[in-house]
Amino acid sequence: MKKEIVKPSILPGFMELLPYQQIAFNNMLDTIRKNFENYGFLPIDTPIIEKSEILLAKGGGETEKQIYRFNKGDNDLSLRFDLTVPLARYVSQYISSLTFPFRRYQIGKVFRGERNQKGRFREFYQCDIDIIGNGKLNIINDAEIPSIIYSTFKDLGFESFSIRINNRKVLNGFFDSLGIADKSEVLKVIDKLDKTGIDAVKKELADICENGNIVEKIIEFVNIGGSNPEILEALNQLGIENEMFKEGLEELSKVVRFINLFGVPDKNCKIDLKIARGLDYYTGTVYETILDDYPGIGSVCSGGRYDNLAEYYTDQKLPGVGISIGLTRLFYQLREAGIVLDKDTASLTQVLIVPMNDNIEYAAMTANSLRAESIITEVYMEDAKLSKKLAYANKLGIPYVILIGDEEIDNNLLTLKDMRVGEQNKLSPEEAVRHIKEGLL
Amino acid sequence: MKKEIVKPSILPGFMELLPYQQIAFNNMLDTIRKNFENYGFLPIDTPIIEKSEILLAKGGGETEKQIYRFNKGDNDLSLRFDLTVPLARYVSQYISSLTFPFRRYQIGKVFRGERNQKGRFREFYQCDIDIIGNGKLNIINDAEIPSIIYSTFKDLGFESFSIRINNRKVLNGFFDSLGIADKSEVLKVIDKLDKTGIDAVKKELADICENGNIVEKIIEFVNIGGSNPEILEALNQLGIENEMFKEGLEELSKVVRFINLFGVPDKNCKIDLKIARGLDYYTGTVYETILDDYPGIGSVCSGGRYDNLAEYYTDQKLPGVGISIGLTRLFYQLREAGIVLDKDTASLTQVLIVPMNDNIEYAAMTANSLRAESIITEVYMEDAKLSKKLAYANKLGIPYVILIGDEEIDNNLLTLKDMRVGEQNKLSPEEAVRHIKEGLL
Repeated sequence: MKKEIVKPSILPGFMELLPYQQIAFNNMLDTIRKNFENYGFLPIDTPIIEKSEILLAKGGGETEKQIYRFNKGDNDLSLRFDLTVPLARYVSQYISSLTFPFRRYQIGKVFRGERNQKGRFREFYQCDIDIIGNGKLNIINDAEIPSIIYSTFKDLGFESFSIRINNRKVLNGFFDSLGIADKSEVLKVIDKLDKTGIDAVKKELADICENGNIVEKIIEFVNIGGSNPEILEALNQLGIENEMFKEGLEELSKVVRFINLFGVPDKNCKIDLKIARGLDYYTGTVYETILDDYPGIGSVCSGGRYDNLAEYYTDQKLPGVGISIGLTRLFYQLREAGIVLDKDTASLTQVLIVPMNDNIEYAAMTANSLRAESIITEVYMEDAKLSKKLAYANKLGIPYVILIGDEEIDNNLLTLKDMRVGEQNKLSPEEAVRHIKEGLL
Repeated sequence: MKKEIVKPSILPGFMELLPYQQIAFNNMLDTIRKNFENYGFLPIDTPIIEKSEILLAKGGGETEKQIYRFNKGDNDLSLRFDLTVPLARYVSQYISSLTFPFRRYQIGKVFRGERNQKGRFREFYQCDIDIIGNGKLNIINDAEIPSIIYSTFKDLGFESFSIRINNRKVLNGFFDSLGIADKSEVLKVIDKLDKTGIDAVKKELADICENGNIVEKIIEFVNIGGSNPEILEALNQLGIENEMFKEGLEELSKVVRFINLFGVPDKNCKIDLKIARGLDYYTGTVYETILDDYPGIGSVCSGGRYDNLAEYYTDQKLPGVGISIGLTRLFYQLREAGIVLDKDTASLTQVLIVPMNDNIEYAAMTANSLRAESIITEVYMEDAKLSKKLAYANKLGIPYVILIGDEEIDNNLLTLKDMRVGEQNKLSPEEAVRHIKEGLL
């Protein structure tokens, strides 16, 4: 009886890559991880499935609609939709076993059943770092974060990018000084300025503020420009007598000064008073990161300072500061933007050993000695014409092929073919190793 | 209004680690990945959520009961329960874009809603490699697999372990020669020999075979012992005239010979005719791996050869050979067996910079220069007594502390404290870097 074939496919909104793309993706992920570790962040790995009562403790809003939630036995389960809620639960649960300030990183998949649309993913990688204080956390931590963003995006190969920084207290203090009641609504509107444009924002603000004069003042404020010292000076000159504003301005000034001390050039980190961030739990410093050559991608790394990480799981006050890179979306956008993924890295393999006849023994032993030299080696074991064997190396972009026939075996030689230039030489095994190592530098 | 606190906890059957344990876990995972890559396997990363019709195409049995399956919108979704079914779907889906033989590795979480019991996990990491041929695949591939197991477990720090190898055709051919009708039932019973003991197996076999003489012959057969050449010779001497048996014996002989050529010592790879593996899709070579000092853990790396990977998704015949390491369970068992996880590696950080006063500027700049030397560096930024700052380094096992006070700043010196021996010295920044690098070797 013939089996029924199910057409192989995956669900819409899920990213899956071919191996050569996966190598490029993994390189980015490894680079991010290495940077996080270099700054002393510790790894954690929380379950993908958690109790719904934990993940939805805060409840409400878009989250609840997007979450993958289901029952198994008596359990009400959900897939994590970010790495922040699991972090809050984790820190609360193990608080007595952790050392504070707790610097943790987590890289993993999260799940959101969003409406299906181009460039939005239902399963995607987040790469998060957070520094959590027990009771309090020095503001200078907020200045170290941009140096990690800077180091990471440099290592990812980007030359031109801007970390945009602001402070919620500066915004909220200013709104207070204008007598605005619903500050969080104004924040949300401001946050959309880059996306929706100034006219739409003015209109929305007018609905909230009911005073054209105030709207003008807000627009004027968030558009204060210049160098970082100039913006700080301009804010000072406003002479706003509001405690929150003054506190925010002091924080922002200190953070900007220390960002420089931590080695981030001015051109890569700019105060931008339009940055507000949507999430309502940020309370101080906020960050966004823009690739200067691809502003359309939007922020590729965002975050900020919060007063209390885990209020739903513990009475302990846990202030923190953190950032997140949405790697799946970033990778997708870089592909869409035509930033070429090098097809030459279709494999990690450095040498393919090709036996010219049935004598695979000598090939196996040659593989052993190359692997002992930390050269990534494969043996082509299938019966096939030489042209097919070489095509395998070509398709996968393997730089070296070693041909082994009777002559090579009899004389203890290897024929080394550099696939990139087509050149080939008969060499002793030691010479071949040296040649390959030099050629791979 | 006071918020209601949800007690922070995770579901039973899910592993979650403290950071120092996570570092040890990640070291194991990185070692496995590095070995897979060194042998030329390419990474893939399939979605955790797939269509239920894909994952359950084969259907039936335990799988269907254990799977996490749910609806979202109109979609019938399931979480993957292994990495083999997704591989079958992946290879079928992208067959025209892949280069064969296709060597892929995948490391990721899989999900099984098993009955809750000690040492069983509902979410766990599998680390898989497979070599997939398009139409056919040389038997020598089966011989390379043990060399990857050998290299991996050596690198994981194990000295004594045995890769046990067998061939299904040898067993089935032998059963055929005895006139046994239900060979797969006999296989399943044999597979339990190490667990349930000889008496239980004899009893079960008697129920299937209805002939005491045959049962004795089976027991005698699977207990054939000695060195690999001795076992092969003994099998030859049986003079069994059955095509499947002869084919299996030839394969097994060839595989064992090449395992040696690929550098695996005899003591680490032994023919064991009792190895059958439960999964019914294996058709030739089968493997198990036992840690000699912890036989109770059972097999830590298993796999085998199969004739057809993806019969539910394509008409193309895709033979392959592969293995899987269940890392979560292995890690758990190693902890249970008291194999110590070094508490000294509670952090990856190599140097903690401790400002003795409010002057964090100099500390920040010192951190920059250490990081530029690839030394993993943190700055302790919180206001605290010196004893608390040093306690942070001690708790996390950070080997070096750099103390910076007024005297150090005035003289451009650093006080370097080796926390492991308690010794401290005033050094120039360059001397400090040299000292740290030497001390970390």
